[in-house]
Amino acid sequence: MTSAGISTPALSAGFHFSSRGEQLIGQEMFRVLDRAQALERQGHRVYHLELGNPRMAPPAEILEATRQSLEAQQIGYAPMAGIAELRTALAMRYAARVEESVTDSHIVISPANLLIHQFLDLTCNPGDRVALFTPAFPSYWAAAAHLQLEVVPVPLAERDGFHLSHQAIEAALSATPRAVIVNNANNPTGAVYDPAVLRYLSARCASAGVWLLSDETYADLTFDGSCSTLTAPHAGHVVVISSFSKVLSVPGFRTGYAIAHEAVAAKLALSNSTLYSCLPAFTQRGCLAGLSVLDRYAAEVRLRNARVTALCDEQINRSNILRSAKPASGFYLFVDISGTGLDDMQFSRRLLDEYHTAATPGRSFGNAYRSFVRLATCGAEEEVLEGVARTVAFAHQLGGCRVQAA
Amino acid sequence: MTSAGISTPALSAGFHFSSRGEQLIGQEMFRVLDRAQALERQGHRVYHLELGNPRMAPPAEILEATRQSLEAQQIGYAPMAGIAELRTALAMRYAARVEESVTDSHIVISPANLLIHQFLDLTCNPGDRVALFTPAFPSYWAAAAHLQLEVVPVPLAERDGFHLSHQAIEAALSATPRAVIVNNANNPTGAVYDPAVLRYLSARCASAGVWLLSDETYADLTFDGSCSTLTAPHAGHVVVISSFSKVLSVPGFRTGYAIAHEAVAAKLALSNSTLYSCLPAFTQRGCLAGLSVLDRYAAEVRLRNARVTALCDEQINRSNILRSAKPASGFYLFVDISGTGLDDMQFSRRLLDEYHTAATPGRSFGNAYRSFVRLATCGAEEEVLEGVARTVAFAHQLGGCRVQAA
Repeated sequence: MTSAGISTPALSAGFHFSSRGEQLIGQEMFRVLDRAQALERQGHRVYHLELGNPRMAPPAEILEATRQSLEAQQIGYAPMAGIAELRTALAMRYAARVEESVTDSHIVISPANLLIHQFLDLTCNPGDRVALFTPAFPSYWAAAAHLQLEVVPVPLAERDGFHLSHQAIEAALSATPRAVIVNNANNPTGAVYDPAVLRYLSARCASAGVWLLSDETYADLTFDGSCSTLTAPHAGHVVVISSFSKVLSVPGFRTGYAIAHEAVAAKLALSNSTLYSCLPAFTQRGCLAGLSVLDRYAAEVRLRNARVTALCDEQINRSNILRSAKPASGFYLFVDISGTGLDDMQFSRRLLDEYHTAATPGRSFGNAYRSFVRLATCGAEEEVLEGVARTVAFAHQLGGCRVQAA
Repeated sequence: MTSAGISTPALSAGFHFSSRGEQLIGQEMFRVLDRAQALERQGHRVYHLELGNPRMAPPAEILEATRQSLEAQQIGYAPMAGIAELRTALAMRYAARVEESVTDSHIVISPANLLIHQFLDLTCNPGDRVALFTPAFPSYWAAAAHLQLEVVPVPLAERDGFHLSHQAIEAALSATPRAVIVNNANNPTGAVYDPAVLRYLSARCASAGVWLLSDETYADLTFDGSCSTLTAPHAGHVVVISSFSKVLSVPGFRTGYAIAHEAVAAKLALSNSTLYSCLPAFTQRGCLAGLSVLDRYAAEVRLRNARVTALCDEQINRSNILRSAKPASGFYLFVDISGTGLDDMQFSRRLLDEYHTAATPGRSFGNAYRSFVRLATCGAEEEVLEGVARTVAFAHQLGGCRVQAA
């Protein structure tokens, strides 16, 4: 991880940050966003491929329900675990999927990014190990670093399309971690794991006494509509988290949820209360309305993502310099830039400065990925295609000799 | 602190929470809210005096700007430190007040409750001491407990109207804390501290190398319109926090801010990014519109609060069993219930069950305050007056003999 480009003014003499304060690394793509927005303030048009910031119009029901809730002045404090109606609706939806009894006592509403932090905070002590299958979403690294945990990176093989394997699971557990995080469908690779392998992971964690966080933020966005979820809350050791941000195109609502054993859910609610009291009721009302149309809306989004991502993937691979493995879900391309001769920071910095196209450096997903960048394909279609074209043009400028040599 | 009334289902065998997870205490008034809402679901009308949940209509400008922002689909990710326009507006407002140069690099938007946690997280290591002048807002205790800090409670004298004194400041600093938290105007006592004493506190902290959090959430709600702020950000060691929740009657917007040295502000922004990425842009747009009418609106709210709080204070003291010191700000009464013979938990539990009136037990503000409850007077006027009347009726039921003896 790097904080290059962030100026850090000196503190007053005699004052110091805490050790945890020194461990803060944040999310690189938000720093890229800040730099991109500075360019925009200078009057440049910037092509945003750095953040998974969906620009499809969300279901009209969400905005309408939010508007009505605001009009009804539902602007007071709300219950710390989230509004009862949303928790009940999520419990019913999840119960139907896993064919188990699930109630609102198993559901806690909170931003999904914060839930990663809350899960690790509740289950791990400083110095404990947490295993991540890499490449892995930056927030896992950021939360673990801030909480002074030791990350055990378990690389998934690029040649296998970055799929989860029994071998990787055994490697993760052999490090005797306190917790494992698995992210299916995967950000940034778009891989969708084999349900049988996921069940094996859960069973191995249960028998080894290892907590398991299953981040299923993209589970409803597989291109073929298949979807598997790990079985919480009765498994006890499994905490499932997800978000409305991606599947309903409302990242600015900052609303997600956890499904967990009721002892864990009670702790998560207490964590909400301790940290930030509660979430707005009106954004939760909006998400509740969105939930009622989620299946229909997600089906449209999947189609759009499959089409646009395939177009981008084709452009990338046709460059003969950049490479990406065809994703099966979500809206990211994890692009191998080793053909350009630049590392991820150099590449993404110059791509932004010279081609006004913002991308996320690969090292945000693990130090082993300095020859990758992640491109998000969920923006406005013409913006995404232009951004990818600029990325390819930049690669050609850098790698022209190589192409001729090939 | 107590978690009485919260059932904690057992974890699966072999699984344990972290030490920090065990330290979570949350905010008692949110548990009271949960119990009160359970009564409401049974069909009872409950009088809510437990939370500072203002029910005055907020400025129409806030709801209108929020609605317009939603309509413009400003529902993507926002900058991690908050939207630039709101930071700039806050910087200008604060600069005019302290007559120093303040820019948006000194301002970070985040929920004020979370900023308490973020401040302590950034400045204190586990085992460090943090001094609180008591009675003190529950979130200070909750954040310190969660971060495994040692709280040094420094009681302010009830006979002096719970005012901050030089003696209390010296007592706080003699404990060699890493940080001090001061809350002016004060929740729960409504005391407004002498500006000269506050300046002395800041100077003493500076020379002792002690961080100082100045929670000024109620600073614009003093009954006489006076207002003092501690001078950040150039003092370096001072972090000022405040919230739009109370002064603009929009607690459900969950939006507050910090004013700090730019090194601290940069860390707070990174903390936002690490924890929850960013806040919604549309709620920040609403608060920006509210800021432009804050002075006019706060003047109305102050008048209303002074009037209603005085009515309540009079009812309480006329009971001859309950006592409260007349507040000079905000919308709370810190009520001495020692005349009733019950402790705070017994009193507030029975007040809720038998009189359907919710209050916050005094121990939430420090263990020394088990003979107090806090009543919030910011609800709908008739609800507040009825709730206070019920509180007095309950006290009479309990303390009838005493009254006759008096």
